[in-house]
Amino acid sequence: MGTDRLEAFSDGVMAVAITLLALNLTVLGPHHGSTLASQLHSRWPAFAGYLVSFLTIGIIWVNHHNLFKNIEVIDRTLLFANLALLFFVVLIPFTTSTLAQYLTVGDASAHLAAALYCATLLAMGLSFAFVFVWSIRRGLFRVKFSRDEARQAAWRFGAGNVAYVVAILVALVSAPVALVITFLVALYYVFERTATSPNTSTSTSTDSA
Amino acid sequence: MGTDRLEAFSDGVMAVAITLLALNLTVLGPHHGSTLASQLHSRWPAFAGYLVSFLTIGIIWVNHHNLFKNIEVIDRTLLFANLALLFFVVLIPFTTSTLAQYLTVGDASAHLAAALYCATLLAMGLSFAFVFVWSIRRGLFRVKFSRDEARQAAWRFGAGNVAYVVAILVALVSAPVALVITFLVALYYVFERTATSPNTSTSTSTDSA
Amino acid sequence: MGTDRLEAFSDGVMAVAITLLALNLTVLGPHHGSTLASQLHSRWPAFAGYLVSFLTIGIIWVNHHNLFKNIEVIDRTLLFANLALLFFVVLIPFTTSTLAQYLTVGDASAHLAAALYCATLLAMGLSFAFVFVWSIRRGLFRVKFSRDEARQAAWRFGAGNVAYVVAILVALVSAPVALVITFLVALYYVFERTATSPNTSTSTSTDSA
Amino acid sequence: MGTDRLEAFSDGVMAVAITLLALNLTVLGPHHGSTLASQLHSRWPAFAGYLVSFLTIGIIWVNHHNLFKNIEVIDRTLLFANLALLFFVVLIPFTTSTLAQYLTVGDASAHLAAALYCATLLAMGLSFAFVFVWSIRRGLFRVKFSRDEARQAAWRFGAGNVAYVVAILVALVSAPVALVITFLVALYYVFERTATSPNTSTSTSTDSA
Repeated sequence: MGTDRLEAFSDGVMAVAITLLALNLTVLGPHHGSTLASQLHSRWPAFAGYLVSFLTIGIIWVNHHNLFKNIEVIDRTLLFANLALLFFVVLIPFTTSTLAQYLTVGDASAHLAAALYCATLLAMGLSFAFVFVWSIRRGLFRVKFSRDEARQAAWRFGAGNVAYVVAILVALVSAPVALVITFLVALYYVFERTATSPNTSTSTSTDSA
Repeated sequence: MGTDRLEAFSDGVMAVAITLLALNLTVLGPHHGSTLASQLHSRWPAFAGYLVSFLTIGIIWVNHHNLFKNIEVIDRTLLFANLALLFFVVLIPFTTSTLAQYLTVGDASAHLAAALYCATLLAMGLSFAFVFVWSIRRGLFRVKFSRDEARQAAWRFGAGNVAYVVAILVALVSAPVALVITFLVALYYVFERTATSPNTSTSTSTDSA
Repeated sequence: MGTDRLEAFSDGVMAVAITLLALNLTVLGPHHGSTLASQLHSRWPAFAGYLVSFLTIGIIWVNHHNLFKNIEVIDRTLLFANLALLFFVVLIPFTTSTLAQYLTVGDASAHLAAALYCATLLAMGLSFAFVFVWSIRRGLFRVKFSRDEARQAAWRFGAGNVAYVVAILVALVSAPVALVITFLVALYYVFERTATSPNTSTSTSTDSA
Repeated sequence: MGTDRLEAFSDGVMAVAITLLALNLTVLGPHHGSTLASQLHSRWPAFAGYLVSFLTIGIIWVNHHNLFKNIEVIDRTLLFANLALLFFVVLIPFTTSTLAQYLTVGDASAHLAAALYCATLLAMGLSFAFVFVWSIRRGLFRVKFSRDEARQAAWRFGAGNVAYVVAILVALVSAPVALVITFLVALYYVFERTATSPNTSTSTSTDSA
């Protein structure tokens, strides 16, 4: 299988998942006792969750394409590793909704909701890292990495996962702080592009992405 | 990154968002005390919102493709500006639903709902205008604009945003009038195509779109 | 604009709309007083609606591609006529759900629900017919039709619309019979392909579709 | 019609269906009397259903593309057989949700829910097998099968359907065991690729998929 169809299907799944995030945003209509302003105010965790998860899935998509554009052939292992990645991407709207519901409660359920959210992102990140490492090991890349480049690239690919592990631990103490960490991870990947081919290690904003 | 994958992902997100608009259209079944006719009648704001938002997203899609067909390379800034555009497009079903719920209430919540709706359209329009201006500044267009053409095109691209600012202000007085303004903006863009390449400044209905 | 992007976007919208049809299929869980079997039995209108609407949107998709594969250039009128077509396709899950809720009630609401369902299909069919007639008039087809072929093709394209008008009238008397008529229209289009290019007027199942 | 548009539309439908699976995953917010942990624990059938159905649709997609990549022309029968396949794929989120609601109840409704789930998978599998057999009979494949290869390939294609028949029968006794069988079928297809072209009968994980 060439990468075309895998990218088209992955695009479709990510496009639907990123759009379903907005289904978590709802308000009760009038005649429910509280004004729209007070509802929007009390529902801020839903909007914060939408922001962080939209940015996260957006970056997954950006990195997914940068990565697969440098992959020449797809073997069966890669195909199912990509399905695993999508499995966790599709869970993100659910874990976002759960986190938004419990974020400000401050009890064990809030900590669990935040840990679940971060754990899904970690599982997504590990699937993604597996795709990367497997492609290097099997020589599936169009432009090959040197041993040094591969080590450096793998580290940058994996950096987010280390942060997600930290976020899970923090979640056990504070759900909002855990969400902030996942937001910072997303911001990090906006400004620091992952190395998906040897010559992307240095980049400026005017490079072709 | 070429524009192909960005267009495919954006197409996917816009296709899902435009279809989710219809999820706002629901009626209670029989045995709820009111006939279907009276329910449809009292739910007219949901249908009005569907019409305006469908047309708006439809036009975003038309202009998105006219624009990106003339863009040669995509830099990282453009990639994230496009994500910002999609961020607000995905919010449209939510703000449409909120506006439809409050449109005819006539209180502060109605004004807030309408202002929120128009503000999302404005944020979408500004993201779009940024994509346009950035592409001109960085020379990313296939067919270059002269300085005069660029100024004229930018104005036509931005005209909707001026109207959206007016709509936000009007929303503070009347939610229905604000919705009418956003409808007129959509109609304007049906008949007046935005200039996405130098030679589209004059157009007739028989031109290839 | 070439037909590629229009087809991709239309594909996306139709794929989402056809899949959202299944959201109308729901059952209450256990502990609600009725067995699953009795729920499925009483919900048969939802399943009948799913069948007819899935088949209808499926055929719209088949005919859409057969048609656009023979269209060479897309003008702005065609672009918006296609948006009108999608506008009504996206309404189908809503009108299907409404019809399913009221199908067996037998009162004025049932007749209205059925008329609404058929009217949406008619509006979709008329948009489609407009796309066809406009493309002939403006000479947008790759393979041109002779005057006779055009007349014959337009008739076959429009046949469904005549049936939908009949269905609307029948709906005022019996909702279930109106649904049966729309099912027969769908079946007709399974076996009788619409003529989207001059040489498809005679066809057997072994022709390439 | 070439296979491109059929694959794009099928991709879209499968991408939406696989993502809608996650809509079955919901928890009540705080202030409903039970902790998040206890809710997640009691909702394990929903997660089990998500896992099995995601894997199943994922494999349908993998096999769909392997198959259509070897198909040269699409006739009208194949077009509608593919629509039938999608018809049952789109039902999977509904039957998964129904099974999850009733899985642990242990009464006749649970058996019916499980039988319905397996029957939908069987109908999907039979549609898929029909696509395969029809393509062989009509010589639609790019790389032709010998008579022996065809018989062997058809058997491997059909193996899942035999298991689904068994699962339906088992469902009448135990819903959870039926779900386990469908999970094993999915696992089988992860490791044993279906033969979609003559030279895929022997494969290792390093082959291009």
